[in-house]
Amino acid sequence: MDIEQHTTTVKDLNHNWVEAQYAVRGLVPATAAKIQEEIKSGKQYPFDSITELNIGNPQTFGQKPISFNRSVLAAMLDPSVLQHQSEDVQRRAKHYCDKIGFGVGAYSQSAGYPVVREALANFIQRRDGTAERPNINDILLTDGASAGITLMFNLLLKDNKDGVMIPIPQYPLYSAVITQCGAQQIPYYLVEEKGWSAEQSELEAQYEKAKQNGITPRILVCINPGNPTGQVFDKQSIVEMIQFASQKKIVIFADEVYQENIYVENKQFISFRKVALELNLNVEIYSFHSISKGITGECGLRGGYMEITTKIDQDVHFQIHKSKTVMLCPNAIGQLMAGLMVTPPTKEEGCSDLTIQQYNEECRSIFVSLQKRAAMVTQFLNETKGVSCQPIEGAMYAFPKIELPEKFIQFAKEQNKEPDVVYCLDLLNETGLVVVPGSGFLQYPGTYHFRMTILILPEERLLAKMKIFKEWHETHMSKFQ
Amino acid sequence: MDIEQHTTTVKDLNHNWVEAQYAVRGLVPATAAKIQEEIKSGKQYPFDSITELNIGNPQTFGQKPISFNRSVLAAMLDPSVLQHQSEDVQRRAKHYCDKIGFGVGAYSQSAGYPVVREALANFIQRRDGTAERPNINDILLTDGASAGITLMFNLLLKDNKDGVMIPIPQYPLYSAVITQCGAQQIPYYLVEEKGWSAEQSELEAQYEKAKQNGITPRILVCINPGNPTGQVFDKQSIVEMIQFASQKKIVIFADEVYQENIYVENKQFISFRKVALELNLNVEIYSFHSISKGITGECGLRGGYMEITTKIDQDVHFQIHKSKTVMLCPNAIGQLMAGLMVTPPTKEEGCSDLTIQQYNEECRSIFVSLQKRAAMVTQFLNETKGVSCQPIEGAMYAFPKIELPEKFIQFAKEQNKEPDVVYCLDLLNETGLVVVPGSGFLQYPGTYHFRMTILILPEERLLAKMKIFKEWHETHMSKFQ
Repeated sequence: MDIEQHTTTVKDLNHNWVEAQYAVRGLVPATAAKIQEEIKSGKQYPFDSITELNIGNPQTFGQKPISFNRSVLAAMLDPSVLQHQSEDVQRRAKHYCDKIGFGVGAYSQSAGYPVVREALANFIQRRDGTAERPNINDILLTDGASAGITLMFNLLLKDNKDGVMIPIPQYPLYSAVITQCGAQQIPYYLVEEKGWSAEQSELEAQYEKAKQNGITPRILVCINPGNPTGQVFDKQSIVEMIQFASQKKIVIFADEVYQENIYVENKQFISFRKVALELNLNVEIYSFHSISKGITGECGLRGGYMEITTKIDQDVHFQIHKSKTVMLCPNAIGQLMAGLMVTPPTKEEGCSDLTIQQYNEECRSIFVSLQKRAAMVTQFLNETKGVSCQPIEGAMYAFPKIELPEKFIQFAKEQNKEPDVVYCLDLLNETGLVVVPGSGFLQYPGTYHFRMTILILPEERLLAKMKIFKEWHETHMSKFQ
Repeated sequence: MDIEQHTTTVKDLNHNWVEAQYAVRGLVPATAAKIQEEIKSGKQYPFDSITELNIGNPQTFGQKPISFNRSVLAAMLDPSVLQHQSEDVQRRAKHYCDKIGFGVGAYSQSAGYPVVREALANFIQRRDGTAERPNINDILLTDGASAGITLMFNLLLKDNKDGVMIPIPQYPLYSAVITQCGAQQIPYYLVEEKGWSAEQSELEAQYEKAKQNGITPRILVCINPGNPTGQVFDKQSIVEMIQFASQKKIVIFADEVYQENIYVENKQFISFRKVALELNLNVEIYSFHSISKGITGECGLRGGYMEITTKIDQDVHFQIHKSKTVMLCPNAIGQLMAGLMVTPPTKEEGCSDLTIQQYNEECRSIFVSLQKRAAMVTQFLNETKGVSCQPIEGAMYAFPKIELPEKFIQFAKEQNKEPDVVYCLDLLNETGLVVVPGSGFLQYPGTYHFRMTILILPEERLLAKMKIFKEWHETHMSKFQ
C-alpha cells in the first residue's frame, strides 16, 4: 500500500479538466489496448488481434498516402534526395523552398507559411466558385483541426454562463473542450429518422431553454458532413442554420473536415462560407479543415487550418493572431501537407501527363473504395436484426442504432454502467472489434448506438468483420430476450 | 467607417486570454515585420533588411540540420528514396518503420511512439548516470516543450488563488499561460550581480508574501540553463530549490530545453531528476525538453517531451494521459526527431566510421561555433559603454543591462511607453536589429534590459552586427545625456 503523501492529488487539479472525457480514446479503446498486451503475453481470446474501428485513422488499415505529396516532403527534409525525384516533384519542392526561406527546421510565422495560406485561399475560392477570394490573414494554419477549434473555444468562451450549441450526437472533442473551458453544452438533437437532419424548431427550442436557464448561447457547432452521423446537409439546412445564428447573434463553427468524403450522387459539399456570402447576412463563421481526413488521410502529420470566413471585429482578429503566437507555430510538415492537399500537380504547373495521371489514379482509387465501403457497411448493418443505420452519405463512420433488450439494459444498470458501454465491451471481448459507445457522442435519451469507422482494407476484410459483427450481435442479443 | 454591429467584440472574449502577452512575438517583432514589408515596397531605411535577434531560431541564420537525422526522416516519409540512402540511414529508418506500425501518416498513441519513449528513457538514464531508468509511461511526447508546459499548467492550476513561482526574468511563455489560466504569477528575482543566481531567501520571502496575499503557491518554475539569462545552475542551487519545493509541497517544473547548450568549462548540466533521486525527498518534478534547441535546432518540426521524473499520485498520472488524448497525438515527424536527437549513430548499431565521423563533426562544429559566439557577444556587450552583461554560460541569448539616461526615461514616459520598449523600437528603426525589451521577460523594477539571440552566422556577420549595435547605443544614448 502506498502510504506516501503526494503533493498533488486529483482534488488539487483543475476540476474542469478532470471532468472532461474523450470517448474516442476512452474506456473501450483502453480495454482494447490491455487485451492486445495480454494476447502478446499468450493469453487466449477468441480472436488473434483487436480491430480498431474506434478512430478515423485511414492509414492504419493500409490506405496509401498520395505519393507525389510524400515525395515533395521528403525532398524538403533532405535536399540530397531531390536528384532522385521526378522533375515535377523537384519543381514543386523548389517552389516551396523558394518561399519558406530558412526551411522546415525554422519557426514559421505563427499563422503559418504565407505560401500555404495563398494556396488555401485559391482553393477555397475555386471550391466555392465565388468572386471573393479569402484574405490570407483570415487563414491560420493549425496542428490539425482540433487545435484550431480548441484555440477558438478558449478565446471565445469567457465564463460558465456561456454556452455552445452542439449537435447530438456530436464529436467528443466538442464536449471535452467545452468542459475544459468551464462552459455549458447546449444540445440540439439531430433527427435520426430524417437522416440526422438539423431542425430549425429544435434549434429555437434549445436556444430558449438555455436562455431560461441563464445561459448565453455563444457558438453554434455545425458538423458537415456529420461525425459520427455521416449525413450531408443540403443547402436549405445550411441557410436555416446561418439565418438562425445571424438572428440570435451566435457565432458558427463549421467543422468541414470531411468535405471531400461525400459518397452519394444526390449530395455535394456546400460550404457555410459560400452560403453566407450569398445570404449576405451579418454573421460570424469560422471554418475548420484538416489533412487527416478526405483523400489525404495524413492523421499522423497533424495539419489543418481555420478560416475566418466572414468579417469580424478588428480587435478580435488581432486577439486570434496574438493567441496563436504563444504556441510559436504549427509544425512545418503538416503545414506543407495542407498546401499539397489543395494543390494537385497540373499541366499549368508544367507537370507531365504521367505525374497527373498517377496522382489522379491514386486519389480516385481511395475515393471509390471509401464509397464502396460506405454502401457496404450501411447495407450490412441494416440487414442485421435489431440494428438500423441511416445512409452513410459522407465522412468515415457508421452510427447505427441498436435495440437492446430490456434484460440487457437491466444487466448493465446492475453493473452501474451505460448499456451501450457494456455492449461495446462485450463486443470487444468476444470479437476483438473496437467501437465507441454512442454515449460518448451523446444520444437521444433511451436510444443506443455505437460509432465504427468504415476504414478496414481490403474490402473483403471489412466484409468479413461485418459478418462477424452481425453474427455476434444476433447471437448475443438473443441471449437476453 | 465601419458601422456594422459585430456579434463578437473584445469584451465578449475570455478576459484572461485577452490579457495574455507574448513578448517574443510582440510589438517590436510586429513593427519589424511591417518595416520588412515597407522595404520591399521601396521605402528607405538606413539598412537593407531586418535582423531577427528576437527569437531562438537557429536555422534562420543558416545553422544546418544534422544530415543523418534528416535523411532518416525523408526515408520514413517516402520509402522510395531509401535505396539512395546510406546503409546506416536505411537501417535506422527500417528500425523505426518496424516499430511504428502504420507509418507516419497514422495517429500514434497519444503519449507518442513507444520506440521513441524507449530511446528517451535510455538517454535520460545515460545522461544522469543513474541506476534507475525512467518508465516509458512517465514520458509523454509533445509538439515542442511549450505544448507540454501548457498542458500541465492547465491541468494543475485550478483557480485564481493558485500561484506559480516564476524566475524574473522569465521566458514569456510562462507569464502568458499563467495569465490564460487565470492564475497568479509569484515572481522570484534572480540576482543579476551574482550571475543571475536563485537565492533561497528570495524564494522564501516571495512564498510568504504570496501566502499573506491569499495565494497558494503550487508550482515552482526553474529554467536551467536560463532563458533569457544564460546562467547554468550549480548542484547546490538545484539542491536548495528541490529542498524548498519539498518542504513547501510545491511542484517543480524544470525547463531543461537548453541542456545541450552549455559553453563554459566550469559548468555542466545537472538535471533536477538526478539531484532529486540523490536527495530522495518527497517532491514532484516535471522536466521539459525540446528538439528546437541544443545542437538539433529543429524549431519548425515541433517536437519535445515531458517527463514525470518522480513518483506521483496514480490518479493524477491517469489525468495527464487522459488530457493528452483530447489532442489525439503529437506530430509524427517531431516525435521521430526527438528519438533521433538522443540516438546518435554508433558502432554498436552497426554504423560505419564515416557516418559516425560525419555526425560527430556536424554536431561539434555547431557547438563550437555557438560557444565562440556566446563568448564574443558577452565580451562585446561588456565593452559597450553603459551596457553590462553577465557571462552567457548557456542557452542562446544575451540579456544585457542597459543604463538609460534620465532624459531618455522621461522621453519614453511622455509617450506612455516602457523605456526599454522605446529603446528597442529606436534600435530597430535605426539599425534593423530586432531584440526583445526586458519588460517582456519582467525585470527588477528600475532596471532595463533586452534579450538578443547569439545565433547570427557566419561569426563575422555577428561581429559586424555587434559593432553596429555598439556604435548605435553609444551615439544614441549620448544624445540624452
